[in-house]
Amino acid sequence: MCEAAAYLLKNGQEELLLSEVDIIEPDGDSLRLVNIFGEQKVIKADIHRLNLVNHKIILKEK
Amino acid sequence: MCEAAAYLLKNGQEELLLSEVDIIEPDGDSLRLVNIFGEQKVIKADIHRLNLVNHKIILKEK
Repeated sequence: MCEAAAYLLKNGQEELLLSEVDIIEPDGDSLRLVNIFGEQKVIKADIHRLNLVNHKIILKEK
Repeated sequence: MCEAAAYLLKNGQEELLLSEVDIIEPDGDSLRLVNIFGEQKVIKADIHRLNLVNHKIILKEK
């Protein structure tokens, strides 16, 4: 499976936000993340970097 | 491998922009995409939707 873990960058540290992420899409000025279990998170953040081979999504707060 | 294909949404159609994408990161007001072969594309676009389980990245032009 090719889902990835989403981390939020805070003070230079990566905090795990949601694992096994499938969908990411803008939702107003936020991003909506949905994982393979249907769990959702909506967060005011931008994409900092995606690294798909390493299954890693890094977001930063707006 | 968990890279994905990046498509650009144009007039409701999805045009293949770059296959086997590994990295996506902002580059000024553009996005920089790098695939597993080191091929790069920089495009003035936003993320419309990521669907990682389906290996699909959909971008829309700014």
